[in-house]
Amino acid sequence: MKFQIEEKTDSSEARAAKFDTDHGSVNTPIFMPVGTHGVVKTLTPAELKRAQAEVILGNTYHLYLRPGKEIIKNAGGLHKFTSWDGPILTDSGGYQVFSLSNMRKIKGNNIIFQSHIDGSKHEFSPEKSMEIQRILGSDIIMAFDHCTSYPCEFEDAKEAMERTHNWERRSKEYFEDMRALYGHDQFLFGIIQGSVFKELRQKSAEVLSNIGFDGYAIGGLAVGEPKEEMFNILEETMAYIPEDSPHYLMGVGKPEDIIWAIDRGIDMFDCVIPTRNARNGLMYTWNGRVKIKQAQYKDDYKPVDSNCDCYTCQNFSRAYLRHLYKKNEITGLRLNTLHNIHFYLELTQNARDAILNNEFEKFKKQFFDRYPVEKDHWKENLKKKEERQR
Amino acid sequence: MKFQIEEKTDSSEARAAKFDTDHGSVNTPIFMPVGTHGVVKTLTPAELKRAQAEVILGNTYHLYLRPGKEIIKNAGGLHKFTSWDGPILTDSGGYQVFSLSNMRKIKGNNIIFQSHIDGSKHEFSPEKSMEIQRILGSDIIMAFDHCTSYPCEFEDAKEAMERTHNWERRSKEYFEDMRALYGHDQFLFGIIQGSVFKELRQKSAEVLSNIGFDGYAIGGLAVGEPKEEMFNILEETMAYIPEDSPHYLMGVGKPEDIIWAIDRGIDMFDCVIPTRNARNGLMYTWNGRVKIKQAQYKDDYKPVDSNCDCYTCQNFSRAYLRHLYKKNEITGLRLNTLHNIHFYLELTQNARDAILNNEFEKFKKQFFDRYPVEKDHWKENLKKKEERQR
Repeated sequence: MKFQIEEKTDSSEARAAKFDTDHGSVNTPIFMPVGTHGVVKTLTPAELKRAQAEVILGNTYHLYLRPGKEIIKNAGGLHKFTSWDGPILTDSGGYQVFSLSNMRKIKGNNIIFQSHIDGSKHEFSPEKSMEIQRILGSDIIMAFDHCTSYPCEFEDAKEAMERTHNWERRSKEYFEDMRALYGHDQFLFGIIQGSVFKELRQKSAEVLSNIGFDGYAIGGLAVGEPKEEMFNILEETMAYIPEDSPHYLMGVGKPEDIIWAIDRGIDMFDCVIPTRNARNGLMYTWNGRVKIKQAQYKDDYKPVDSNCDCYTCQNFSRAYLRHLYKKNEITGLRLNTLHNIHFYLELTQNARDAILNNEFEKFKKQFFDRYPVEKDHWKENLKKKEERQR
Repeated sequence: MKFQIEEKTDSSEARAAKFDTDHGSVNTPIFMPVGTHGVVKTLTPAELKRAQAEVILGNTYHLYLRPGKEIIKNAGGLHKFTSWDGPILTDSGGYQVFSLSNMRKIKGNNIIFQSHIDGSKHEFSPEKSMEIQRILGSDIIMAFDHCTSYPCEFEDAKEAMERTHNWERRSKEYFEDMRALYGHDQFLFGIIQGSVFKELRQKSAEVLSNIGFDGYAIGGLAVGEPKEEMFNILEETMAYIPEDSPHYLMGVGKPEDIIWAIDRGIDMFDCVIPTRNARNGLMYTWNGRVKIKQAQYKDDYKPVDSNCDCYTCQNFSRAYLRHLYKKNEITGLRLNTLHNIHFYLELTQNARDAILNNEFEKFKKQFFDRYPVEKDHWKENLKKKEERQR
């Protein structure tokens, strides 16, 4: 993969970069909307294009179960099946096998699990994950990993990390031997694990760099640890990742987290927050969050964000969106999602522009001046949990 | 209202006509998508424009309850509130008061009812219905009527009809004295009642013609009577409606019903079938219905209708739509609805074109050659009901 850093900042690790796939180039930092089942919930590919989305995520575990790889293979791959012709990144399925499936047993390099949908038995392995992602035809394939939850004991984290290294090595071996199915190139990203333990993260980053991947993801963060801990670990890890490759922070996050992580040198983000929260009536703006169901909006005829040029803000008032929300109108879910996806893409796009213009510090300051950062509820929850356990 | 008949057919009552509103002209025959709560479910105004929708329905009863007339008045009317800038027709609320509200009591010209949402008490009258529709700013206002259900005794139908005549007279009086709120003209349509009794329908048509309205609707049909009976009554009624006014058949219907009714001289239609059925995975094409959830479509990579130029058919396969349906993906509901609305509008548009080209007989024949007409389940249901009652 030809990864080109266009501009670095002096005062932080933030950088603007670019790489090409056969489905178009990716300009970083970038937010990647999540299309778990081969669709970004409530939206169409045309809307995603208009919002200037570049990469869409798909989910190997979910797509493997439904509609199944044969359906997608016969369609000519996920691009043709979903009608999204831009780059697609698919995760390895590892995370879902551990977090969603019912029973699961690790047997050497295989993991046996039961579908969360119908209890049917399945087996995943690094090789199988690669093969499914080959069939999906993703532009970016993620190596098969074992993601731990939080909190996690050191020994468990170590074991999962070592398993991850083994699985990722096998992922790469299979990947190197396999031929792309649909005539376009596929790239392979490795996933660094190690929970919140610096020593493990360092080790993981080093091992994966030695194996060598097209890009490096940091997995197993934003799984419940306090925000402070997450950023400490992130900084520690970043020091050991090859600079001249894309850095992808999986599953993050809130707008402020994204800005913080760009500051630490992250290039790529995915998160369900903008889509899921939109469906719960929570919208994001440069001035903070708007909970559209609140009574204060019932006769507020301003758009969610007066400066936003998305279709929602250009055409509809908060009062109308609140009405749609209160009446459970599907159109409301769409309009909210469209706005949030637009905002998230603008967020990373503006960060990128600021880096290119050597104004990232100013951009960051302006962002935090306007945007009220959410409290880190995990700290409080953890404290409460500890108190209960006493 | 300037209603201009552009072309009549020799062999039937079908005609192509046109009238203007301040929000655009209406070319008939036309199907009008239903936007009960100020939104055509799952769609946006931009999509309706692209599907060449001309008139959208709104629902006085529902909009009066939520968000309430003050919210819409302060928005500057329903057009501004919903961002739909084409013609809007609102029903009078009469039908919902009788079919949806909990308790209801007729007291002279007033009807007292309880909201189906929260049980709160409200009062409607012809004057109040007119005033609400004035505030909504509909281009076409429907007179306040009493719609009977089916089956209905002759005496009950007669009483409801006479009440309707009285209410519609009062509707017109109020309408003539009221000033439009937002600087655009509003028109008033009368509603003919009389259940399935020819003598009452004839009477109702005559009384309303004498009162004089901008257009005439036939209400109280498609409420459960056998299809044959509906078309007999429709024909009987049509003979007594002024020819040089729009004819609107309320709540109809399936594609074949619409073609049949155009044949009898109907110009305007509304129905929830294309939108509601879309959300249940039922799609309409010129070759009949497609139940997208069926297993036969799981690897069917053709569009729902290969000749259709809607966004759905241009971009997505039956296999993909089936996948979205099975995963309860909102995008699927949108894409199905978009197709159905597109089909219904094409249906009336093609009928109109055929009339203008003096080819309506040929069009009708071609339609019924291709489109498998659904069985009239009401006949069977009625038979079963009668058997049970014996």
